[in-house]
Amino acid sequence: MSSLSRELVFLILQFLDEEKFKESVHRLEQESGFFFNMKYFEEKAHAGEWDEVEKYLSGFTKVDDNRYSMKIFFEIRKQKYLEALDSQDRSKAVEILVKDLKAFSTFNEELFKEITQLLTLDNFRENEQLSKYGDTKSARSIMLMELKKLIEANPLFRDKLVFPTLKTSRLRTLINQSLNWQHQLCKNPRQNPDIKTLFSDHSCTPPNGARAPTPV
Amino acid sequence: MSSLSRELVFLILQFLDEEKFKESVHRLEQESGFFFNMKYFEEKAHAGEWDEVEKYLSGFTKVDDNRYSMKIFFEIRKQKYLEALDSQDRSKAVEILVKDLKAFSTFNEELFKEITQLLTLDNFRENEQLSKYGDTKSARSIMLMELKKLIEANPLFRDKLVFPTLKTSRLRTLINQSLNWQHQLCKNPRQNPDIKTLFSDHSCTPPNGARAPTPV
Amino acid sequence: MSSLSRELVFLILQFLDEEKFKESVHRLEQESGFFFNMKYFEEKAHAGEWDEVEKYLSGFTKVDDNRYSMKIFFEIRKQKYLEALDSQDRSKAVEILVKDLKAFSTFNEELFKEITQLLTLDNFRENEQLSKYGDTKSARSIMLMELKKLIEANPLFRDKLVFPTLKTSRLRTLINQSLNWQHQLCKNPRQNPDIKTLFSDHSCTPPNGARAPTPV
Amino acid sequence: MSSLSRELVFLILQFLDEEKFKESVHRLEQESGFFFNMKYFEEKAHAGEWDEVEKYLSGFTKVDDNRYSMKIFFEIRKQKYLEALDSQDRSKAVEILVKDLKAFSTFNEELFKEITQLLTLDNFRENEQLSKYGDTKSARSIMLMELKKLIEANPLFRDKLVFPTLKTSRLRTLINQSLNWQHQLCKNPRQNPDIKTLFSDHSCTPPNGARAPTPV
Ligand SMILES: [Zn+2]
Ligand SMILES: [Zn+2]
Ligand SMILES: [Zn+2]
Ligand SMILES: [Zn+2]
Repeated sequence: MSSLSRELVFLILQFLDEEKFKESVHRLEQESGFFFNMKYFEEKAHAGEWDEVEKYLSGFTKVDDNRYSMKIFFEIRKQKYLEALDSQDRSKAVEILVKDLKAFSTFNEELFKEITQLLTLDNFRENEQLSKYGDTKSARSIMLMELKKLIEANPLFRDKLVFPTLKTSRLRTLINQSLNWQHQLCKNPRQNPDIKTLFSDHSCTPPNGARAPTPV
Repeated sequence: MSSLSRELVFLILQFLDEEKFKESVHRLEQESGFFFNMKYFEEKAHAGEWDEVEKYLSGFTKVDDNRYSMKIFFEIRKQKYLEALDSQDRSKAVEILVKDLKAFSTFNEELFKEITQLLTLDNFRENEQLSKYGDTKSARSIMLMELKKLIEANPLFRDKLVFPTLKTSRLRTLINQSLNWQHQLCKNPRQNPDIKTLFSDHSCTPPNGARAPTPV
Repeated sequence: MSSLSRELVFLILQFLDEEKFKESVHRLEQESGFFFNMKYFEEKAHAGEWDEVEKYLSGFTKVDDNRYSMKIFFEIRKQKYLEALDSQDRSKAVEILVKDLKAFSTFNEELFKEITQLLTLDNFRENEQLSKYGDTKSARSIMLMELKKLIEANPLFRDKLVFPTLKTSRLRTLINQSLNWQHQLCKNPRQNPDIKTLFSDHSCTPPNGARAPTPV
Repeated sequence: MSSLSRELVFLILQFLDEEKFKESVHRLEQESGFFFNMKYFEEKAHAGEWDEVEKYLSGFTKVDDNRYSMKIFFEIRKQKYLEALDSQDRSKAVEILVKDLKAFSTFNEELFKEITQLLTLDNFRENEQLSKYGDTKSARSIMLMELKKLIEANPLFRDKLVFPTLKTSRLRTLINQSLNWQHQLCKNPRQNPDIKTLFSDHSCTPPNGARAPTPV
């Protein structure tokens, strides 16, 4: 995509956000991969909505793109695993272990084996390295602090963490400019041009009524 | 939202579709509630993605808005229930019955009781009215034919079923028009104007290099 | 079995009970079908051990032997069903409905349909006839009072509810009598006969040592 | 229990077996702990009825009585675990691991860790030591061959593996002997004594009818 095309996406993001089309904003952030909304990411992680967290990330990186990405996905899935264990749901924990964490065993077999052993403890806090694990809320906060560092260090997220500075409603402004441009081509310009639609170019014709111009 | 604002959403929908930001398209359709994409709806229903089907519909109507809407949600949930029964998952079926279908019992208690009784049959096709139920694929098709009629008849969907006719890339066209308008305000217009950004208005200034104009 | 054979089973039941072989006692009661231990039955029903309750009953009657038996099994399974509903386990409840209660639908279809409907209530006490249902403990007591009446009225249990009057350790007494009988056939009876075994007949022979006679 | 009391239990076991009170036979074997029925044990193990297998064993030994017993229980539970894994039921496998196998971790932590790791394999046959594991049927046979050796070597089962040699219906014979003994005490012995009951001693009295003597 050309850089102006890319900028258009940002204008749309601003518009969608101003119109409170919240889900659309994040879905476009993810599908375009142009802007990583750290605030949204933290919100979802704090809420434990792991499917959405991974889905959102997938717009920017795959698990094995580089070691930062690997660690990011690993930390998320490890947290998901520990939470299942903490709620005594071994059934769910073993599924996470096999479906989500096994992928990392080729990179660090020892660690994966240690993580597997946690299944057999009454409380994984018996493991020395997890002895300081508090409750879910605090654990997610600690995980997020780590994830933020990893994302900020990850080359794939460079330049995607700061939303460009824009005047309010920039897209609307440009649309109004285009209407102005259309009107100035009118052979018989009316003082109050009748803008009916954006779908086709405006043209002032004699029989038009005097409807107040409604800027976008 | 003013009608031009509404039209801008359609231009954005077209843009997102052209750029293949598929999920964003449908999320915006749902959040704005301006256009109901029947093709997408049918696709999700055929795939049995009931959560998304109901989520998409929720952008246009609630269960009890009118009798068409009630019947639409009822038919979807009834299909979900029958599919659970058909795959011998009584556990899932009874959850659907209580969570999704019970809401309709106040409107038609007899029907709800009949539906409840299906749980106890070896094969719900023993029930006379369901004796012609074929397989999942055909049942979903039959359900969709019914849903299409209900949606087309439902006042809440009036005027939302046809996407307006637009020239290709209408939004890009308008953006280019706005750039033209910006440029014509330049005091010292260059022959090949240097459009650097959409984020702030263009201005030709003497020391600008000759970068090829990249229309959007 | 001849009546003396039958009596021998009672002597064995008494012996097993005196020796505290508790499970063997009840298994023999069930397999012979000679004596229905009401106290044991109540104990198991109070404990909600439904599998054992039905297994024990099966030594005396099948579900459809007569209307008393049908009602006995029906009341037990209905209680099992209500307890599953009361602990919010609809999954378990619907399995009980289909596996255990459906058999009764041919005899009383209306009742079976009513029972099925209970699945859809937030609390089955909303049903008028179950409004007085207290907690599990009291419900089981009320059920047991009903079951006792049905068992006492059921012809299949006639004469099986009262354990015959026996002197303590009657079987041991008879064994000792048989040893006396064996000894009196001895050609050279010793004053203190050496009873080595029950497995083969005793016989006093000169070289036997003077081991104290150990009556059984 | 005196040795004659013990022998009486064997006579009862023979009687119950002759009368085909099968469950009572094995329950008495287990509760008395006098005779370990290898044939029955193999039958239950072949059928994968693990609860009954462990229940039956519990009449003879506890898990940690000696190293033979430990290995016996370990092999059974390991087989149960492997079967759960083989049927893709990781949920069940992890429960067996924690409830049944964890007890052995204090004795062999390395082995327990290895067994835990099997949860993460697609097919536990990927583990070198289990590569020869065939199907359930053959695995159970191999396990049983091992269990038989362990039981035969286990001091707690010494002298309990062979049922004593008895003439058929030895208990009935002794009962008949006791009736003979009772009759010979009769002051006015009838030629065909009337044996009414085993519950109280027989006595020939003048007004007795001539019912054919029914030996037990
Ligand atoms: Zn004009
Ligand atoms: Zn310019
Ligand atoms: Zn003698
Ligand atoms: Zn006599």
